[in-house]
Amino acid sequence: MRITAYRKAHFNAAHRLYRPDWDDERNKQVFGKCSNPNYHGHNYDLIVGVTGAIDPETGYLIDLKILKDIIKNEVETAFDHKNLNLEVPEFAALNPTVENIAVVIYQKIKKVLDPKFDLEIKLYETPRNFVVYKGEK
Amino acid sequence: MRITAYRKAHFNAAHRLYRPDWDDERNKQVFGKCSNPNYHGHNYDLIVGVTGAIDPETGYLIDLKILKDIIKNEVETAFDHKNLNLEVPEFAALNPTVENIAVVIYQKIKKVLDPKFDLEIKLYETPRNFVVYKGEK
Amino acid sequence: MRITAYRKAHFNAAHRLYRPDWDDERNKQVFGKCSNPNYHGHNYDLIVGVTGAIDPETGYLIDLKILKDIIKNEVETAFDHKNLNLEVPEFAALNPTVENIAVVIYQKIKKVLDPKFDLEIKLYETPRNFVVYKGEK
Amino acid sequence: MRITAYRKAHFNAAHRLYRPDWDDERNKQVFGKCSNPNYHGHNYDLIVGVTGAIDPETGYLIDLKILKDIIKNEVETAFDHKNLNLEVPEFAALNPTVENIAVVIYQKIKKVLDPKFDLEIKLYETPRNFVVYKGEK
Amino acid sequence: MRITAYRKAHFNAAHRLYRPDWDDERNKQVFGKCSNPNYHGHNYDLIVGVTGAIDPETGYLIDLKILKDIIKNEVETAFDHKNLNLEVPEFAALNPTVENIAVVIYQKIKKVLDPKFDLEIKLYETPRNFVVYKGEK
Amino acid sequence: MRITAYRKAHFNAAHRLYRPDWDDERNKQVFGKCSNPNYHGHNYDLIVGVTGAIDPETGYLIDLKILKDIIKNEVETAFDHKNLNLEVPEFAALNPTVENIAVVIYQKIKKVLDPKFDLEIKLYETPRNFVVYKGEK
Repeated sequence: MRITAYRKAHFNAAHRLYRPDWDDERNKQVFGKCSNPNYHGHNYDLIVGVTGAIDPETGYLIDLKILKDIIKNEVETAFDHKNLNLEVPEFAALNPTVENIAVVIYQKIKKVLDPKFDLEIKLYETPRNFVVYKGEK
Repeated sequence: MRITAYRKAHFNAAHRLYRPDWDDERNKQVFGKCSNPNYHGHNYDLIVGVTGAIDPETGYLIDLKILKDIIKNEVETAFDHKNLNLEVPEFAALNPTVENIAVVIYQKIKKVLDPKFDLEIKLYETPRNFVVYKGEK
Repeated sequence: MRITAYRKAHFNAAHRLYRPDWDDERNKQVFGKCSNPNYHGHNYDLIVGVTGAIDPETGYLIDLKILKDIIKNEVETAFDHKNLNLEVPEFAALNPTVENIAVVIYQKIKKVLDPKFDLEIKLYETPRNFVVYKGEK
Repeated sequence: MRITAYRKAHFNAAHRLYRPDWDDERNKQVFGKCSNPNYHGHNYDLIVGVTGAIDPETGYLIDLKILKDIIKNEVETAFDHKNLNLEVPEFAALNPTVENIAVVIYQKIKKVLDPKFDLEIKLYETPRNFVVYKGEK
Repeated sequence: MRITAYRKAHFNAAHRLYRPDWDDERNKQVFGKCSNPNYHGHNYDLIVGVTGAIDPETGYLIDLKILKDIIKNEVETAFDHKNLNLEVPEFAALNPTVENIAVVIYQKIKKVLDPKFDLEIKLYETPRNFVVYKGEK
Repeated sequence: MRITAYRKAHFNAAHRLYRPDWDDERNKQVFGKCSNPNYHGHNYDLIVGVTGAIDPETGYLIDLKILKDIIKNEVETAFDHKNLNLEVPEFAALNPTVENIAVVIYQKIKKVLDPKFDLEIKLYETPRNFVVYKGEK
């Protein structure tokens, strides 16, 4: 009896789309205004989904307080009110597109989540642009 | 040409997370404030998804009025403005977690839905906590 | 230069519409299924608005962390995961309609808010039913 | 490393559910008030999902500006502020149910999208009625 | 102790912006694509606000079931799944802009609402375009 | 017959709460993590309200395309994908709190809006924190 439970969270951050091995001219050509060297920012909305079997003892898939704490430790503390390019080590050499941010969040949560669960990440950069990442199959 | 059609509904109910075979102390230890013996409650948002082939005659997967009526009869009449623990027989011995409520809704709708359709249930306990259940595969 | 700053919060609670000086029959006649003796519940969404002058030193009307803490202390701690009729003293003799809950929230916040500010309370019982209360004029 | 990126758009249109080979009586019997000969209308919300591999050079699945332009050219210009039955050739002989509109949008975008991507269409006729179409499998 | 209670509703309709005393050319020049002679349509979201004193006996401003029925009778039955220009008498000679629709809704509800209440109408033509009308002061 | 028409828009920007005449220590003490020297950012949602009389000729309060263009020219072009502190002249010496941003938007739009209209600005910094500014009375 497999089910997916979701928990919603959010963080606010600055970023620019930027490859350090390209000059500003080429970054601007490829990434447009998203590459503004002075940064811009977003309210990121995050939905973390965990799939597995319902625990017949509790009726929980997972105690959502556990999931909430994992998100707080791995994502909110690390990303909220931060400059992703300058202050989050994962993006020192990795372009912080919404795709790459979702993959990084997946990897950070996967490391600490009970391995019996499947994981999926839905990340909204804006209400109009978002991604879903479910790991490599 | 398979498609999924969704219909949104909602109901308001009281519940407590509680196993009758545990004492209040243990219920509180495992379920925290969600086990308040005086109950608390939620506005549950429900999205029912039905998957199958488009009927070439009507262009419908299913007449959504049929689905609306099924949801009304099976879920809204049974759950809305009720105390799930005390008044909904399915939860007399089953802890009304959002996971278990979704499974019960799935089973109730599955029984009356044309068996040619696959069914999925998305149930929001709050805008931040929700589950998806698609039956046993 | 008067401005209004808003902070959104929420709490989940059980209640029934009920006057203790009426019998169950009359309560049911007037309040319908909302008077179910076994209770039902809601996810209440609360928006607290504070009006006054922008502080030229900080550019804040009010530090929203202060407002957030007031809401937490006065409303969330008192109401969240509670049975409003049984566990919240203000409703021991007062029918917990959405109107009366909004007035009680107004009075509780007003008592601890800097008196230089005007206050308004927007309270959603459901996404379809809500009230706004701005105090007595 | 497969990921799905989504872009949200919208259009407003009039339509009626109607088969030209049935008379008005039979159309009304099957489609009810949705078959009103004078038309009614909707704000359609559209979410287009594209699945594939992240481009390691840019960190994009697809430049969402490309996807935005495809949606503008194929859907918004063709459908927005139009009468679907009278002015959109695809519905001259095809009943514009939300199911059929989603399939038509899928086919129009599929024709111009890089074939390396999978495509999915989520179309809301109202906030309560919507469909997901992912092509024939 | 004055409070405002709100009830949300919705209807779907076709319309065109059009003055019958102007020719199509001039209608198109002033109203653009909104004047398409074949009509377009919207999901209108309506929020009706009623202001007055809380009834100390019930704790209600107004029984929201009464307000719900008024909205159903005066607005939903009259406007839902209709062509506003052709089928709603109030717009036979009045251009159905969102402003005028809001005023008409105000007048229809005002006629049947207990005169002790003030009334306000919030009408969304789209999530991005909406109006508030509170009557003549 | 006065009515208010609203138009919704949005922009994404980086900022930090910061007074240049205070050192980083004091800025941090007063503004907390919002004063991060590397900036953070938001998706700002903006609702511009315009109040006046309905034009009996068109049924419009104001052609919302005019309002849309004003918002585009005065706000979106100036603020979107920008660093408010570094790139928007109004905040060179003014702390870009949500309150001050709303006042600046009010002043910029007021300058180009027909003076017969009243103006109000609702600005969301996050879905939980927002302000309304209606000018000096």
